[in-house]
Amino acid sequence: MNFLSLSEYVPTGIPGMDDMLEKKGIPRGTTIFLAGGPGSGKTTLAIQFLVNGAISNGESGLYVVADETPYRLRTNMMRFGFDIEKLEEAGKLMILDIAPIRYLPREEITIGIGKKFSIKELREKIEESIQKVGGKRVVIDPITVLGFQYTDEVERRYAMIDLLESLSIMRTTNIFVSELKGTGLEREHMFEEYLAQGVILLRNIRIKGRLVRSLQVEKMRGLEIDTQPRPYSISSKGIEVYPEETIL
Amino acid sequence: MNFLSLSEYVPTGIPGMDDMLEKKGIPRGTTIFLAGGPGSGKTTLAIQFLVNGAISNGESGLYVVADETPYRLRTNMMRFGFDIEKLEEAGKLMILDIAPIRYLPREEITIGIGKKFSIKELREKIEESIQKVGGKRVVIDPITVLGFQYTDEVERRYAMIDLLESLSIMRTTNIFVSELKGTGLEREHMFEEYLAQGVILLRNIRIKGRLVRSLQVEKMRGLEIDTQPRPYSISSKGIEVYPEETIL
Amino acid sequence: MNFLSLSEYVPTGIPGMDDMLEKKGIPRGTTIFLAGGPGSGKTTLAIQFLVNGAISNGESGLYVVADETPYRLRTNMMRFGFDIEKLEEAGKLMILDIAPIRYLPREEITIGIGKKFSIKELREKIEESIQKVGGKRVVIDPITVLGFQYTDEVERRYAMIDLLESLSIMRTTNIFVSELKGTGLEREHMFEEYLAQGVILLRNIRIKGRLVRSLQVEKMRGLEIDTQPRPYSISSKGIEVYPEETIL
Amino acid sequence: MNFLSLSEYVPTGIPGMDDMLEKKGIPRGTTIFLAGGPGSGKTTLAIQFLVNGAISNGESGLYVVADETPYRLRTNMMRFGFDIEKLEEAGKLMILDIAPIRYLPREEITIGIGKKFSIKELREKIEESIQKVGGKRVVIDPITVLGFQYTDEVERRYAMIDLLESLSIMRTTNIFVSELKGTGLEREHMFEEYLAQGVILLRNIRIKGRLVRSLQVEKMRGLEIDTQPRPYSISSKGIEVYPEETIL
Amino acid sequence: MNFLSLSEYVPTGIPGMDDMLEKKGIPRGTTIFLAGGPGSGKTTLAIQFLVNGAISNGESGLYVVADETPYRLRTNMMRFGFDIEKLEEAGKLMILDIAPIRYLPREEITIGIGKKFSIKELREKIEESIQKVGGKRVVIDPITVLGFQYTDEVERRYAMIDLLESLSIMRTTNIFVSELKGTGLEREHMFEEYLAQGVILLRNIRIKGRLVRSLQVEKMRGLEIDTQPRPYSISSKGIEVYPEETIL
Amino acid sequence: MNFLSLSEYVPTGIPGMDDMLEKKGIPRGTTIFLAGGPGSGKTTLAIQFLVNGAISNGESGLYVVADETPYRLRTNMMRFGFDIEKLEEAGKLMILDIAPIRYLPREEITIGIGKKFSIKELREKIEESIQKVGGKRVVIDPITVLGFQYTDEVERRYAMIDLLESLSIMRTTNIFVSELKGTGLEREHMFEEYLAQGVILLRNIRIKGRLVRSLQVEKMRGLEIDTQPRPYSISSKGIEVYPEETIL
Repeated sequence: MNFLSLSEYVPTGIPGMDDMLEKKGIPRGTTIFLAGGPGSGKTTLAIQFLVNGAISNGESGLYVVADETPYRLRTNMMRFGFDIEKLEEAGKLMILDIAPIRYLPREEITIGIGKKFSIKELREKIEESIQKVGGKRVVIDPITVLGFQYTDEVERRYAMIDLLESLSIMRTTNIFVSELKGTGLEREHMFEEYLAQGVILLRNIRIKGRLVRSLQVEKMRGLEIDTQPRPYSISSKGIEVYPEETIL
Repeated sequence: MNFLSLSEYVPTGIPGMDDMLEKKGIPRGTTIFLAGGPGSGKTTLAIQFLVNGAISNGESGLYVVADETPYRLRTNMMRFGFDIEKLEEAGKLMILDIAPIRYLPREEITIGIGKKFSIKELREKIEESIQKVGGKRVVIDPITVLGFQYTDEVERRYAMIDLLESLSIMRTTNIFVSELKGTGLEREHMFEEYLAQGVILLRNIRIKGRLVRSLQVEKMRGLEIDTQPRPYSISSKGIEVYPEETIL
Repeated sequence: MNFLSLSEYVPTGIPGMDDMLEKKGIPRGTTIFLAGGPGSGKTTLAIQFLVNGAISNGESGLYVVADETPYRLRTNMMRFGFDIEKLEEAGKLMILDIAPIRYLPREEITIGIGKKFSIKELREKIEESIQKVGGKRVVIDPITVLGFQYTDEVERRYAMIDLLESLSIMRTTNIFVSELKGTGLEREHMFEEYLAQGVILLRNIRIKGRLVRSLQVEKMRGLEIDTQPRPYSISSKGIEVYPEETIL
Repeated sequence: MNFLSLSEYVPTGIPGMDDMLEKKGIPRGTTIFLAGGPGSGKTTLAIQFLVNGAISNGESGLYVVADETPYRLRTNMMRFGFDIEKLEEAGKLMILDIAPIRYLPREEITIGIGKKFSIKELREKIEESIQKVGGKRVVIDPITVLGFQYTDEVERRYAMIDLLESLSIMRTTNIFVSELKGTGLEREHMFEEYLAQGVILLRNIRIKGRLVRSLQVEKMRGLEIDTQPRPYSISSKGIEVYPEETIL
Repeated sequence: MNFLSLSEYVPTGIPGMDDMLEKKGIPRGTTIFLAGGPGSGKTTLAIQFLVNGAISNGESGLYVVADETPYRLRTNMMRFGFDIEKLEEAGKLMILDIAPIRYLPREEITIGIGKKFSIKELREKIEESIQKVGGKRVVIDPITVLGFQYTDEVERRYAMIDLLESLSIMRTTNIFVSELKGTGLEREHMFEEYLAQGVILLRNIRIKGRLVRSLQVEKMRGLEIDTQPRPYSISSKGIEVYPEETIL
Repeated sequence: MNFLSLSEYVPTGIPGMDDMLEKKGIPRGTTIFLAGGPGSGKTTLAIQFLVNGAISNGESGLYVVADETPYRLRTNMMRFGFDIEKLEEAGKLMILDIAPIRYLPREEITIGIGKKFSIKELREKIEESIQKVGGKRVVIDPITVLGFQYTDEVERRYAMIDLLESLSIMRTTNIFVSELKGTGLEREHMFEEYLAQGVILLRNIRIKGRLVRSLQVEKMRGLEIDTQPRPYSISSKGIEVYPEETIL
């Protein structure tokens, strides 16, 4: 059993965040569930993870996108200085568009993989793409779309386990972007929080009438984590976490 | 790829509001989800966006209305000094009535597009209208009616993505007016908040027994926004936001 | 377009209430949604609106009643000095009983319009009655019964729009009496709050252990309103609002 | 129209309670909805109303019981000094047992009116009994059982209106005993609260850790009521209300 | 009518508890609904009631058990000094196992009464057992299992009334053990609370961060009860209540 | 009846935890329901219980795993110094993988027991494994997967009783790992809390803005337990509880 290889850690590339993870990063080969509200910077954080992996760590990345066009994604990320197109051309980043249907003006052409794709098809597409780009890091944004394929909760759980298993075998380090249902601090857990090896929450917490952006590492198997919520900002340089500060 | 054109910004025409958007406005070609309670001034804000666009920025607008008659809309907006009829005659504003059915006294004539129209039909109607008026700004008020066409949540999500995609290709800047489900600060997110590029909330917040009108930019892709709730007023000049004041 | 005629205002006849409506009243030709809990004086307020309209403004009224007998209504209102029978005889007030079924002792005679009437039938009945009495003000009490005809939420919304449209064409000023679902300040909005031009809430608010009757104008299209909750009383003279007082 | 006869009031016979009702009592010919939690004394209050009516006001009463045996009822009430059997023998009180089924040991004999009785049958049974005893006051305890006959909410509402109408024609004064769904102060309204002419709530309110029995007249058509919750006690003399005291 | 026999009281055998019941106990021939959370000592309290009845009052008891094995019950109770086996041998206590199915190793033998028994069968089994042991006290633990036989709420209510009726005729004094749905102080009432003659709640109340065991007599027909929650403990002597202490 | 054997106690091996259990441990032959949120250390606690049992008490253990691979489990636990592989080789610990399906790259081989296994099959598998390893301690992680086999709540309850019964006959001491539904302190009880002989909760409690890990023994049949929540930590040595400290 190759124990040491599994105990390597992948730096997140998010300033301040690795300090919450024993100053190490995410355990290699695991999947992190990243959940946040609208405008919380989930996509920015996930792209930052891929871009910094490609530039600073020489790790190619795969970005699986469902709700956005690759075009708009490239444009949006440019303002953080994330030049996605350049990385794509250099073969260090690949965008896999799994939007079921895309319309072009006056035509209706399905360029996605269809509204009722099977998880098996999706998994195979992702595996192919990982191999093509030699990917070490994978982001699926959002993972929500996966659940739509299954009305049955049990099926959904097994599909998630299958996908986690498959990526585990590929030895990639992954972020699954997810959507929080509501604004409250008290909330129902999503079943993925139990299945993923790590869970990170991005929330807007109301402190004396002000809203404070707060990042919390809820769970990270294989690490002694700081589970306190910590403030973070979204600026022109992307996400930055302040691991020494409290949100109070 | 035309990067610069996308990074242009559209001034909202709402006094004080652009200050919350890096003093720039809404990124051109994106869709804003504007959600508020009854009497929160959603329609006023949306019309103000169109009227000021037409008058101050030379951008024609399309107002897609579902629950109100164009007649009453024109009258109501007159008191804010928004002369819709004049703009219509000048070809700078167009009202598209998508109410499924309209009754005239003693007769029953369907002058809308029928109760069970498809999103494709609606989309095509909107596209035609945009082209006719040369529209740069679009408002759909309320977007709620769209959801009624789909009992299935997944279908609803895809229909919304289709519509967003279509408008994105038309390069218009859009406001989708939506209805908040309840009065509480803690609330469930609507899935549209995740799909739209921006989210603005209009709420009546209870501060020591008084109700204070508060506008919050929850999300705006491509901008460093002020996410704090800020007070606003509805006066004879329309909506005005006070970006320097706190609601406390 | 007859702009000025629409901008006339209808005095409510409720002492103190017009002060919350720019000292003008309700915009003519619009519909107000009046929602309150049991015993909050909804019916009293609505009748007061009709009686004062008939006596002070020379405007005839139509009262559409579903859950009460006309007989008991007349008796109950007598104690506020509202002599309904006299106004009926003078042709200034008309009661339209839409209770689906009324029992007389030992017999079972349907004198209403049947349990499964269509909205179209109801609308036509109301239109006929308005024309008969030359009605300028209409009350439907409660509007709840309308919703019972439709199990489907979309159908219910369209039926409400149809009715609002129809009354709008008749140019009457209307109050739709509705029932609040619960006692809490935080509550789900009813869809009618979005469709009606105005919304008034009657609630019993708990202030330091005491219950205080509070009237709030949540919405009134075409007016700069006072949206703060204000105390009101129910005395032998009917409803009185105290627009200068806070409920704290 | 016999206005004065309707404006008579029926003394409740509950010490302190008439003080909350303009020192008059319940308007004759109306129905009061009495809702409370388990052990709140609903049945005691209702019986007290009947017994005092028979003894002090010479008004015969009808007690319609669904969940209890007449035998146990008689015994339980004896400790408050309410000698039901004596009043029955004197023809001043009648118990109508509408329990659908009653078991005798080793036999199974249906002595009620069957599990799926119609409201019409129940109404006729009640009318017959009122005429037999010459009843002026009627209690149905609990009214909950009525709702069980109808799965459809609309049907349930109409059945309630039918019953209220029928009793109104009999000119009896009535208490419908009902069960509160939960312990919280914030609660959903029951539709009967809107239909009945009066609503009285019996609750156990938590004041600084102690539970205080509180009676609140939420609604009483035709009276200027004290709507504040007032403390009450259940002692060997039955229910007593303290109308001058606050529950704080 | 045998009034006095019904007014006898059965001492509970729980130290401190009779003080909350006019120092008398539970009215003979009635049924108490005992609801509590996991680990609240419901079973201990119920067994204590039976054991003390057998030892101190010479009243034989029947314990109807659904979720536990008689074997483990005997063992668990031994540590409180309740020697169930000895009482069984002396014919003073009988355990009726109504678990639908019990497995023995490697075999599957149904020794219960089957998963879909009827209430009538259960009632007859209980009646037989009461007669066999000459039982004066009966415990059913938990009563929850009864509800499983009926998907329909109305059927469930009638089945409960039938069972209460049947035991009432047997003149036994009974405790029905039930499970609280949640941990909150605000809660929905269970319909059994309205049907049973008495209701006792065992809860863990959070007082300034500490959890305090609290017993509350919510209802007891025929007694002037102390309805305040009082602290209790579970020690090696079983349950003890402190009727003079407040939980604050 | 072998009373003394049942009253033996099994030390948990979790530092500080036995102090909350009369300094004894878990009663031998019972099942503990261990519920916690994501990242609360449920699996770590359960493995610690097995490993310490094997090393310090000479009791072999069986770990039944559903959502994780044995491979990753071994790796994760290594960092706490729990050398699972060594114990497996020594025949002191056995891992039973009941994941319904496991994928190998490019192949799809079902190596689990299938998605729709019966509880009877699972029970037999567990019994076989216990006998093979001579197991005295059993962990099922998570028990959640069991519920998926039954859509009907009643069936689920009976299946749980069957499994508890079966393990009781095997005389093993067991931990069933379960997932909390939400983050709130007020919560619905899971029915397993009523069936298991013990319940332990792992929660993250918000104290003045900080999150504090808290362990609470909610229930433990046969022991006088400390039911107060106590702080615990997860360090490189596994779980440690601080039974003398309060979480305030």
